[in-house]
Formats: sequence, C-alpha cells, structure tokens
Amino acid sequence: MKTFTSAAELQQIIIKEKSNDKSVGYVATMGFLHEGHATLLENARKENDIVVLSIFVNPLQFGPNEDFETYPRDLERDENVAANAGVDYLFYPTVNEMYGEEPSVKVVVQSRTECLCGRQRPGHFDGVATVLTKFFNIILPDRAYFGKKDAQQVAVIDGLIQDFNFPIKLVAVDTVREEDGLAKSSRNVYLLDDERIEAKELYQSLLKAIEAINTGERNPNTITALVREHVEAHTNGKIDYIEVYQYPELKPIETLSGNIIIAMAVKFKHARLIDNITLTVE
Amino acid sequence: MKTFTSAAELQQIIIKEKSNDKSVGYVATMGFLHEGHATLLENARKENDIVVLSIFVNPLQFGPNEDFETYPRDLERDENVAANAGVDYLFYPTVNEMYGEEPSVKVVVQSRTECLCGRQRPGHFDGVATVLTKFFNIILPDRAYFGKKDAQQVAVIDGLIQDFNFPIKLVAVDTVREEDGLAKSSRNVYLLDDERIEAKELYQSLLKAIEAINTGERNPNTITALVREHVEAHTNGKIDYIEVYQYPELKPIETLSGNIIIAMAVKFKHARLIDNITLTVE
Repeated sequence: MKTFTSAAELQQIIIKEKSNDKSVGYVATMGFLHEGHATLLENARKENDIVVLSIFVNPLQFGPNEDFETYPRDLERDENVAANAGVDYLFYPTVNEMYGEEPSVKVVVQSRTECLCGRQRPGHFDGVATVLTKFFNIILPDRAYFGKKDAQQVAVIDGLIQDFNFPIKLVAVDTVREEDGLAKSSRNVYLLDDERIEAKELYQSLLKAIEAINTGERNPNTITALVREHVEAHTNGKIDYIEVYQYPELKPIETLSGNIIIAMAVKFKHARLIDNITLTVE
Repeated sequence: MKTFTSAAELQQIIIKEKSNDKSVGYVATMGFLHEGHATLLENARKENDIVVLSIFVNPLQFGPNEDFETYPRDLERDENVAANAGVDYLFYPTVNEMYGEEPSVKVVVQSRTECLCGRQRPGHFDGVATVLTKFFNIILPDRAYFGKKDAQQVAVIDGLIQDFNFPIKLVAVDTVREEDGLAKSSRNVYLLDDERIEAKELYQSLLKAIEAINTGERNPNTITALVREHVEAHTNGKIDYIEVYQYPELKPIETLSGNIIIAMAVKFKHARLIDNITLTVE
C-alpha cells in the first residue's frame, strides 16, 4: 500500500493505471475506520483491479456548532486496517491540499436535502458533494462504494453522479448489523447498558413496517405511525424523525409504490442512532 | 465525423478511446461556428488523437431577459465546418438530455465573477461552470480549448479546473483579429460603416497601454485613464467598462505586477464589443 498526500501525484498514477485498462474502486471516508468501512473495502477489493481509500475530515461538511476539531483521528490504526483490507493507494490530504486559500467554485445540492438528517444540517450536503467532486476527479474511480446506512448521503451522491455525468457506478452496500439487528455504528459504544438492549427495537420496528407492507398496507402515514408506536413502546429513546419517501428522490408520497425508504433517527442519552430500509413496492 | 445526441453513448466511446491511450481535445461551443471556433478546433486537431466538439445553447447561462430563444442556430452549416476542421465526434444534445426534469446539483462560482461582464450577468458563470462540469465528465478531455477573447470565462474555467481537480489542461487560445486589429466577433457585422472604422481603436488603445507599461507606468488608474481617453477621442462608442486586474484571479491591484489583464467593453449603436490583453509585468 502506498500513501499519498499530493492530489496531483495520486491523479497521475491513476491516469497511468487507467491507460493500462485497470479498473479503480474507491471508498471515501473521514478515517477512524470501523467494520462498515472494512465491508466497503471488501466489496471494492472483489470488483476492481485497484482499490483507493481516501481519509479526509472535510471541514466543508461540518456546521459551525459541529465537531470538526474534535472528530476522532487515528491515521496509524487506519493504515493498518487499510493495508489488511488490500488497499493499493491511501489518499490522506491536508485541508490546504484540498482547498488551498480560497476555492472559486463549490457544488450546491438543490434537492434531496430538506428532509431526514439534512433538515438539521444546512450546507452539509453541499460540503459532501463538493469534496466528492474533487475526489472523483482525482481518483477517477470506475466504482464508488458507500454504505446504505447513510441513505440520504447515498441519495445525494446518486444525484451528483447522474446529474454531473460522472462515469462512475455508485455501489450502495447493505448496512452491517449486530446479531440482534442493531446497525453497526461507532456511536453504539455510547449507549447505556439498558439502551443497548432496547436499541435492537429500531430494526425490529422497520421489519414490522415491511411485514405490514407485505400484507397490503400502502398508506405511508399508517407505516410511520406503526414504526413510531413500536419504538415508543419498546425503548426510552426520543424519536427525532420517522419518515417515508420515494427513493432516491426523497420526495413525499401519498401511496407506497416503486422504490421507497423508511428512515428514522432516535436519540438516546449519549447517542443518536439512525437506521433505514429501502424496498421496492409493487 | 460521427454525431451523438446521447451523453451515455458518447461517454462510452470516449472511455474506450482513452483505455487505448488516445488523447482527447475538446472545444465547447453554442454553435453558429465562426473563425474563432475554427482556430480552437485547429489547435485541438494539432495536439490530440481525438477531437470532440460540443454544440449546445445552454439555457442555464442565459438571464431571464437574454436571448436564449432567439440565439442563432444552424446545425447543418456547423456540421460542415466541424467536418472540415477534422472533428471526430460532434456532441449535439437536447436540453432534456443535459438537464432532464430537475437536476439535483449545480456549480456555484464564488469568485472571479463580480467584475467585467459578470457584474451585469448574475448566475451566468454558474451556468457555464455547471454545463462544463457535465461536458468534462462526458467527454473526459485531456485538453480543453477556449478563446482568450472571453477572458473572464477563461479565468472562471481555470478556477473550475484547478479547484475541482479536473485532469484537464486548459489551453487559452489567442484572440483572432482582423487586419486592422479588431477582434473577430459574430457581432462585428452589426457595426455601422463608420463604427467599423472606429472599432479598430479599441485594440489600438490596448497597444497604447502596453507601450505605457513597457516605458515604466505601473499605476492601474493611469492605464485605464489612458485607454479611456484614447477610446473617447477616436470613437463614438459608449464605454461600458475599462478595468485592470490581476489575472486570472480578477482581483484589483494597486501596482501593476505579475500577470494582469486590461479589459474593456464598448457599446456601439447595434453592437457591444469586448476586447482585452493579458500580459506579465516584471
């Protein structure tokens, strides 16, 4: 594995690989790698000649009151995880390498952001789309891997790739879960013991929604009410949102049909958990 | 020459060419090709294995009171010009092919726009940068050719390529001039006979500025005054602006030094002419 801090150097190497007809798989992260990232890398390793991992805590996607400065960083450990996962090129740029003094352009995301987590994070997805536009041009991937757990991010990236015509296949990878169904997350360690037991009920509530849809329910309000009822009955978490949309457009729907998402965020004492399922309704 | 209307089809062909290590030169136009475009194509033909020309009247870069609907279009003539210039692939998409129903992302240009012609055209360069981001991703050029006559456009595209890390070399091609020095433009035909004679004085005024700089003048206000005086003395045109900036940053300067631009716009009865020179001051 080779580590790069220069965008131009990495780009030159990749252009050379591509002129030799090598395929490139890309995983974008902010580092502090966990099992979810490892699963993305595993998928990338299987499907491409070259695997590139970027580690960059992107200031553009943090709000003024968010934790950019204190976001956890551990390059040495990440380098081990990356090497073990078969990464060929690790890109680890500084903020200055990425943005210089004063970038003259940025990407603005005009839809898919005013709901779910995006509603509370104005500008967040502009920052995500801007940094990915840069990474896509530096790394020139054939396939880019993102986790379905961040379903809104996947929807925004789907729009970015389609609407800017990037020659990239977006691979959305299934959420990795604990044995009891809880979606894996670095934040799960912040759950209190009894909260950890309750937390499995988030996924259970989504399974209940699927069951209702499978037995004929097509009203999104009935679905969200059912999910809400389950979460309230079985946990002490505070529901931030439970929402149903067309996916990946994230538009409200009156009747469940086509590709949809059921997504939720629930606050526990020291951890805010998110989960979702996407499915196709006949 | 092969004409494409599908972005995906053209992109596939070009990916194949590039995997065979072919270099791609690109000229972006709104059609109604003139000698300026032919010069860009000539340069592209010399320096690349494959030459791609796009013809697309981009609604995003027209203001509400501008002439999107009536902008001149003549595909048949353009196809002849393109074929004669040795174009390999002509890309001629519809508005729907480029933007579909509702694009989820756009590029916003945050600097280099609040001066010269950009001051009067809010959003114009966002539209230029958005459409070029799409074209760059579809056509994947190694080199993209633009005319120095639209110096602000070149400055914005320079920022777009640098700040989004496009693996593209921007080639800025010298302004093509009539024998008397008037910059070639489709709009020159709108000049009245006596205006056409006067119009050469725009370039003369720029040459006078160069002469003053060469003999030691370093005050930008003195330079703009000198150019203004020459244009007012020798033409009946109405000066829209005469401005001096650092180039390509388009930042004001107090003392001429480094790369600079002297740019002007002058209104005649039925034609508004622009011209500029860029130079390096020791």
